[in-house]
Amino acid sequence: MAQQSHDPTGTVTGTVDTAPAAPAGESAGEVLARYLHTQATEFLRGLRLHADSGNDAEDAAEAARLLRGAIRRISGALQVCRQLIEEGWAEEFGLELAWLAETVGREYACAARLARLRGALHRLSGPSGEGGHNGLTMGAARAGALLERQLTLARTRAHSAALQALGSARFHAVADAVAVLSTQPPLDPSAHRLRASEVLPALAEQAHRRLAEAVAALPLSVAQLPYNAEALTHGLAATTAADAPPAEARQDAPWHQVRQLVRLRRYAQEMLDEQCRTEAEPALSVRLLTAGQALDRHRDASAAAAAAAAAARTPRIAPATAYALGVLHADQRHEVEAARFAFGRAWQRLAGTP
Amino acid sequence: MAQQSHDPTGTVTGTVDTAPAAPAGESAGEVLARYLHTQATEFLRGLRLHADSGNDAEDAAEAARLLRGAIRRISGALQVCRQLIEEGWAEEFGLELAWLAETVGREYACAARLARLRGALHRLSGPSGEGGHNGLTMGAARAGALLERQLTLARTRAHSAALQALGSARFHAVADAVAVLSTQPPLDPSAHRLRASEVLPALAEQAHRRLAEAVAALPLSVAQLPYNAEALTHGLAATTAADAPPAEARQDAPWHQVRQLVRLRRYAQEMLDEQCRTEAEPALSVRLLTAGQALDRHRDASAAAAAAAAAARTPRIAPATAYALGVLHADQRHEVEAARFAFGRAWQRLAGTP
Repeated sequence: MAQQSHDPTGTVTGTVDTAPAAPAGESAGEVLARYLHTQATEFLRGLRLHADSGNDAEDAAEAARLLRGAIRRISGALQVCRQLIEEGWAEEFGLELAWLAETVGREYACAARLARLRGALHRLSGPSGEGGHNGLTMGAARAGALLERQLTLARTRAHSAALQALGSARFHAVADAVAVLSTQPPLDPSAHRLRASEVLPALAEQAHRRLAEAVAALPLSVAQLPYNAEALTHGLAATTAADAPPAEARQDAPWHQVRQLVRLRRYAQEMLDEQCRTEAEPALSVRLLTAGQALDRHRDASAAAAAAAAAARTPRIAPATAYALGVLHADQRHEVEAARFAFGRAWQRLAGTP
Repeated sequence: MAQQSHDPTGTVTGTVDTAPAAPAGESAGEVLARYLHTQATEFLRGLRLHADSGNDAEDAAEAARLLRGAIRRISGALQVCRQLIEEGWAEEFGLELAWLAETVGREYACAARLARLRGALHRLSGPSGEGGHNGLTMGAARAGALLERQLTLARTRAHSAALQALGSARFHAVADAVAVLSTQPPLDPSAHRLRASEVLPALAEQAHRRLAEAVAALPLSVAQLPYNAEALTHGLAATTAADAPPAEARQDAPWHQVRQLVRLRRYAQEMLDEQCRTEAEPALSVRLLTAGQALDRHRDASAAAAAAAAAARTPRIAPATAYALGVLHADQRHEVEAARFAFGRAWQRLAGTP
């Protein structure tokens, strides 16, 4: 990384040695500034919509979606194009953006987790009408009610925290910085000298290489064998001891990391396609999206499994409830495994191997 | 079936119209009689070993293995070659053989089920040393102890029942009938007129057709998609209500049926290869074996999942125990799904499709 930042075009094969003089066509700085401007505009639009949403849950959700999308893309652009930004600036601001995205998104993540677990409980209860109440057995119904209670509470807390955050000085500092990005991004002087059509593909390739390296470290050869039973290896290890190291979380972490890198790679391609008006590569974009979706599913199932395990640690629950939560936990861990399998396939297509 | 029994060679293409006169080569009756004699000898060997085993568990297990193998093959030959046997005889005797095989085998099935569940609990607890006692969490350890207790009790009961059965008049009637089969099998007169080299391949083909029909009725297109989550669809449906219709058993039944038909087909091939000294088809035999093993695994996992669910219905167990049993149940149902997937692949190879 450090070495590459001195020579961002290092990976481009061709004649870059003429760089110092301002080249024909747009500079990398111009393109990056325009991309950041677009995303900052989206961010401010999201912010306005949020302020106006009042008690309208749908508007608030749309505002959060806009905000998170813009935050992720700004953050992505800063990471991918770090060499074009004033040194030190991107890192610190990246942390603030991550905090904001997490804070704004947590409420919706809780809601999605609950919906996923509710759906799984119904699926696991077979075609409705066969069991008792709503097609659910007593254990499944109680497990559902317990998860409902716990995740609704978490959601309410996340909602309050997000509202509080959006009124904080910390948030206003972030919003100010986004406004600055929109008009006067702190670009490195080199950004104006380098040609976009050469630098941006090189940066996208760099992002791709970083992704490929992280994927190479994944246990993909196992994940590509269906029914390898890997994801549930720790299914009973982290259950009863609340303070034990969460073995499943440790197992999932490198996959979550790859998920971020797929997203960065996708944004890099987006910037390239939109801003450089180069010939877009729809196949590549679609494959990146597919790979990312598999890892989104991985993250969601992983979090849902953890929520089921956490609910099972609630004191004084009935054995039937605990049993249902055990089945649910295992089911979501198999979703984790299925998502890894799907990612393995998507990656094969991305890497171009048959 | 009824129609085909009048013309067992109906599926053989070629000149069978010369059949009434005794053909050159062995007759179907001779070959079948020899096969039954061989298997009856194995049966009696198993019986002697059992009588001599005393308290030697290893000898007793070997005796049971011999007995079951011989019983299954005799039963298989009677089913596959029903047209060559006196009418009405095979059906009734088949029921008695099935009773004996089940009685002799139950003890070992309980032991195998316990071993499978114990192995799964350890696998689900991750690499040993991470958790507490033996690498197992409290819930997993208690679930293991509960299963140990219940399946050991079932095993002891099955052992007593088998000993009692082997001393019963019902058993002696079966043993007598096996002795008769060994020397004077009740063949249909046509068996002596028909040429083995024509009839036996036709009967094997008939067994294959019956198998193929049963396979065609399976939801193979779903089973061949990895991670289809079908096997756990009823994971929470049959849990709490002990007297509810066992939805998972209903779902598994056609697969168990196909398992029997694969075995029949395999025995038919065995008889053909061994007795007719035709050119053996090792590829076919291996594929039949592979397909059968996938369905054995299906049956074992299905039974283990049911045992875990049954254990979870034990009154007054701790929530942590119930949770572990829920995880275990779901894990074994995923083994069921994995076995179906494996069978789907094996069947594709068997059917010769790419």
